[in-house]
Amino acid sequence: MDIHELIMQLKEPTGGKIVMVVSDGIGGLPQKPGGLTELETANTPNLDALAKIGVQGLSTPIKPGITPGSGPGHLGLFGYDPLKFIIGRGALEAAGIGFEMQENDVAIRCNFCTVDANGLITDRRAGRIPSEESAAVVETLKAITIPGVEIFVQPVKEHRFVVVFRGEGLGDQVADTDPQHTGVPVLDPVAKDAASQKTAQIAKEFHTQAVKILANQPKANCHTMRGFAKKPHMPSYETLYGLKAGCIAVYPMYKGLASFAGMTLVGNPATLQEEVDTLKAAWNDYDFFFLHFKYTDSRGEDGDFDAKVKMIEELDKVMPQIHALNPACLIVTGDHSTPATMASHSFHPVPTLIVSNLARTDMLEQYGEKWAVCGGLGQFEAQYIMPLAMAHAGRLGKFGA
Amino acid sequence: MDIHELIMQLKEPTGGKIVMVVSDGIGGLPQKPGGLTELETANTPNLDALAKIGVQGLSTPIKPGITPGSGPGHLGLFGYDPLKFIIGRGALEAAGIGFEMQENDVAIRCNFCTVDANGLITDRRAGRIPSEESAAVVETLKAITIPGVEIFVQPVKEHRFVVVFRGEGLGDQVADTDPQHTGVPVLDPVAKDAASQKTAQIAKEFHTQAVKILANQPKANCHTMRGFAKKPHMPSYETLYGLKAGCIAVYPMYKGLASFAGMTLVGNPATLQEEVDTLKAAWNDYDFFFLHFKYTDSRGEDGDFDAKVKMIEELDKVMPQIHALNPACLIVTGDHSTPATMASHSFHPVPTLIVSNLARTDMLEQYGEKWAVCGGLGQFEAQYIMPLAMAHAGRLGKFGA
Repeated sequence: MDIHELIMQLKEPTGGKIVMVVSDGIGGLPQKPGGLTELETANTPNLDALAKIGVQGLSTPIKPGITPGSGPGHLGLFGYDPLKFIIGRGALEAAGIGFEMQENDVAIRCNFCTVDANGLITDRRAGRIPSEESAAVVETLKAITIPGVEIFVQPVKEHRFVVVFRGEGLGDQVADTDPQHTGVPVLDPVAKDAASQKTAQIAKEFHTQAVKILANQPKANCHTMRGFAKKPHMPSYETLYGLKAGCIAVYPMYKGLASFAGMTLVGNPATLQEEVDTLKAAWNDYDFFFLHFKYTDSRGEDGDFDAKVKMIEELDKVMPQIHALNPACLIVTGDHSTPATMASHSFHPVPTLIVSNLARTDMLEQYGEKWAVCGGLGQFEAQYIMPLAMAHAGRLGKFGA
Repeated sequence: MDIHELIMQLKEPTGGKIVMVVSDGIGGLPQKPGGLTELETANTPNLDALAKIGVQGLSTPIKPGITPGSGPGHLGLFGYDPLKFIIGRGALEAAGIGFEMQENDVAIRCNFCTVDANGLITDRRAGRIPSEESAAVVETLKAITIPGVEIFVQPVKEHRFVVVFRGEGLGDQVADTDPQHTGVPVLDPVAKDAASQKTAQIAKEFHTQAVKILANQPKANCHTMRGFAKKPHMPSYETLYGLKAGCIAVYPMYKGLASFAGMTLVGNPATLQEEVDTLKAAWNDYDFFFLHFKYTDSRGEDGDFDAKVKMIEELDKVMPQIHALNPACLIVTGDHSTPATMASHSFHPVPTLIVSNLARTDMLEQYGEKWAVCGGLGQFEAQYIMPLAMAHAGRLGKFGA
């Protein structure tokens, strides 16, 4: 019996509410050995107050030493083994713009680019063409038709757009057409297996028609295709946990990930305070809330230690409003670490805090990496956060007599 | 996807150097409850200095409660699941004397013994006959020929030698002929499966001819056969990690283990200082070094607490020379614990230290069992040391987008 079968067997129809606050990339590193991390440096009186009444530990997103992208990182947090459930980038991008993928769909993440008279790429991102202009160019591509397949073309942001092919017999094993360099032509979409031959042919025809349409676009006269992907097959939060789950996020990718887990996208917040307001407004409508805070990761990626510290302090300020809603289980965690010193995602485990009346409190008085090492939850794989959350919310029955 | 598939997908072609110092059996036990272990007793200023700038944890060689032999212990350290990759003792012994096994080989670890006029064993180790004398006796066995099979006979040390049968259709499921007692005859080599019938017949014929040849040898007039084994199938360090790996060891068994992982045996050092000198001399030639120190285990096996403490202090003395080479990731660990109080290998987890610019330092200032419990790496299976080493050396890319 695997953990999903176990959870489905034990889940109770009732129980308390769960709030999972994901501060993206919250884990960090000290600026010099023995120093303090971003989180340890930040002034976080509210998180520390929660640490006193909760229990802490360190979650390993995937396996020791493995640095996750946002996709696998969040899948782990949502309780899916990230080495078993793999989401293609195209599917992620499609979901992120609210496109509901169907079983027969293949989604592709496309970039506008520019090519010279010889068809050699001069800018792989078309000068990061502004979103409004890009959307207008995307509109012209809706004229493309290919017999036997339905085609959807949707703008994302700047040079990025999504193409979805809908039809029978479309595999998703097609190589990217972005050569990752300038001065070379766009690659052909090549099928990597027999089941994806048709997809590759359609992609090639799409590109041929698109290049004709784009010929006179000065800012974006060509495009590349990446991350061909079908819809992932995952049991929903409802099926797996019996939870009516809501996602409160600002950025498309996290909404997309949540929707694959069957969460409802709640509201359309643009700031952290708007996210918290959305949480309050929807409080009675869901059993589980995933609240995503992006900027701890963004400032870490920027390599800006002090700015990341400030973002953690911003998060700290809203914690009392969330705690005041009195969830049966409040989790504060991250999908991975993003140390400012590395300016990238990293493999380091993530300080994770659970506040619940059922928490066996440890001796910690602060929330942070150094302290989490000694926390009552120990070190564990992120995929066990959801079983722990369910248990702390009184939502799991006894296994066996 | 398993961890090996993941690592192969994420490994980067470049990155820093990794040094893994394996102090065999370094973990121990206090002489009385609440006391200090051998490592905690030892005066180790250099290891403690590394503990301050590194991160510690406890590695479990196999699973909690399981005591490993040297084979599984090292396989875990090298990143191979020791419950999945099994190396037969014969193969290990063959590799240890530098014998390069081929696919059609079955290697057998043999002991000279003495038998009385009735063929009953009087000494299972032939009085630990000196190596030079033993080698001369081994030479006489090279006269043995069996149709359809090529035979190699090589001395090891004292009463031990290796026999390799090379030919088609030789399985390795043959029972040991050593009855493990004196006063009884040497057992017949019995096949445990159909594919090993031929091997058993050849082994019996070998024994028959050998007994005739040895009849007039006063010190070694018989022999036993153990650990029939084919060459193990493991992905090499190059395949798995993209690492050019060198093994620096004094004892044959550890060289053998390293060679199965595709490591090159570097130099021919006889002392710890010679091992360190070998490391320095070969520094530019490899990405990864496995440096094995035997005597912490030897003195533990002797049950000599104080002598093991001294051996740990010997290791401590050379650490600055290793650290001065400035590896991107320096690991200090052991393949298992060998508490002097038990005078044997044990199941206790092993204090493991990683020094790297990417290490998230913990609050520890000394290297030892009691402190490692509170280390930032937590407790983990030894097979994750290599993924951690790769990550700390900047040699693993991001998993997923």
